[in-house]
Amino acid sequence: MDEPLETRLRKIEDQLAIYQVIAAYGPAVDGLSAPGLAPLWTEDGVYDAGGKAPYESRDAVVTLLEQEPHATYVASGCGHVSSLPVVSVDGDTAVATNHSRVYQHDGEQWRVVRASANRWELVRTGEGWQVKRRTNRPLDGSAAPRELLAAAFDASTDH
Amino acid sequence: MDEPLETRLRKIEDQLAIYQVIAAYGPAVDGLSAPGLAPLWTEDGVYDAGGKAPYESRDAVVTLLEQEPHATYVASGCGHVSSLPVVSVDGDTAVATNHSRVYQHDGEQWRVVRASANRWELVRTGEGWQVKRRTNRPLDGSAAPRELLAAAFDASTDH
Amino acid sequence: MDEPLETRLRKIEDQLAIYQVIAAYGPAVDGLSAPGLAPLWTEDGVYDAGGKAPYESRDAVVTLLEQEPHATYVASGCGHVSSLPVVSVDGDTAVATNHSRVYQHDGEQWRVVRASANRWELVRTGEGWQVKRRTNRPLDGSAAPRELLAAAFDASTDH
Repeated sequence: MDEPLETRLRKIEDQLAIYQVIAAYGPAVDGLSAPGLAPLWTEDGVYDAGGKAPYESRDAVVTLLEQEPHATYVASGCGHVSSLPVVSVDGDTAVATNHSRVYQHDGEQWRVVRASANRWELVRTGEGWQVKRRTNRPLDGSAAPRELLAAAFDASTDH
Repeated sequence: MDEPLETRLRKIEDQLAIYQVIAAYGPAVDGLSAPGLAPLWTEDGVYDAGGKAPYESRDAVVTLLEQEPHATYVASGCGHVSSLPVVSVDGDTAVATNHSRVYQHDGEQWRVVRASANRWELVRTGEGWQVKRRTNRPLDGSAAPRELLAAAFDASTDH
Repeated sequence: MDEPLETRLRKIEDQLAIYQVIAAYGPAVDGLSAPGLAPLWTEDGVYDAGGKAPYESRDAVVTLLEQEPHATYVASGCGHVSSLPVVSVDGDTAVATNHSRVYQHDGEQWRVVRASANRWELVRTGEGWQVKRRTNRPLDGSAAPRELLAAAFDASTDH
């Protein structure tokens, strides 16, 4: 704790800014808000949700608002929810790891139609922290989501 | 980043204090804790959960602990869970937007009996940040929850 | 707000560090990561999940990665998700209260096989904030989880 106050404050601001990026994703996509979704990614940012080709730019990510299965989810009622992430910042890059779920309306209840592991690779830009790559893998018993989650603890235990 | 340290610190404290208000809601209502629930709202604060008349004061909000369907939810086992909110502070007022879910115990599992969009309008008071109005709309495919979520991004992209 | 900047900064760092401990639990257990899980507990830390004997040390907590029902959950696909906690720090100890859920993969959906109330008792150590005792009780309509949640508001309303 001998770091200058400025350095300590910057670390906190970074972590909270990254929380905000991740917290904004669900409201943006469930609100069908391109103005909410676009600034979360860098212009060349990627969203790799598995199963089909990744969205390979900010513009491509925004198109998901109109694609299936998203359009059907929203029409029937859905919630994309991100959990509090584990964040590790290293200078101007960061990795955040968390869970996400998609709840879909079905009569008198909501069904969990997706529960996934997420790795968010972020960069500090002139517009704040943005997503360079998000990798999302459903927790279906396969190795990919387990390895993605375990990678949160690779670099250090200083999370 | 040329803001004074004091200003930067205050912003952080505000954001974390608002997180704490929202994080406290679920434990307060599932714990049937009036001492936990009451201080979250201003005296004239409103909780508009749709479908029936809003609770239009702190005292009214606290009565929900004894009303249906809440009493039945708690008796059978339930969890009210708020997601990490997107927070936008403007001086002594703030807006936080997030998802919430109610999980109800049903045999060997819990069913999601409500998944909602939430807009929390908060004010800075002598007792800290408190809720002036919470609007909650189930994610049932109607326009109201979509519009509520998209409104998180109306004022600016500086979230 | 007449506290020194250093004191205010420390409070914020404490709260965020505690968030990170709690956020790390799910990725660690779903990623079967002993390096992720072990440093979250003190050497003599306890995890009391009810129903069977508590894990009564860090080493014991780590063994849960290989025990039932955890092993079956992970093999079939599961997510352990913690909600944003209410945190109360008192010097070198802290209490955090939140909800957790376990989502288990089942065909085209995930079922919520556990929704619980959690009390995390933490201590400041040379390795940062660590869990001295976590108590987890399923929200099954019994009094234990309700009392655990209400206890978040016992000490004060200054959360």
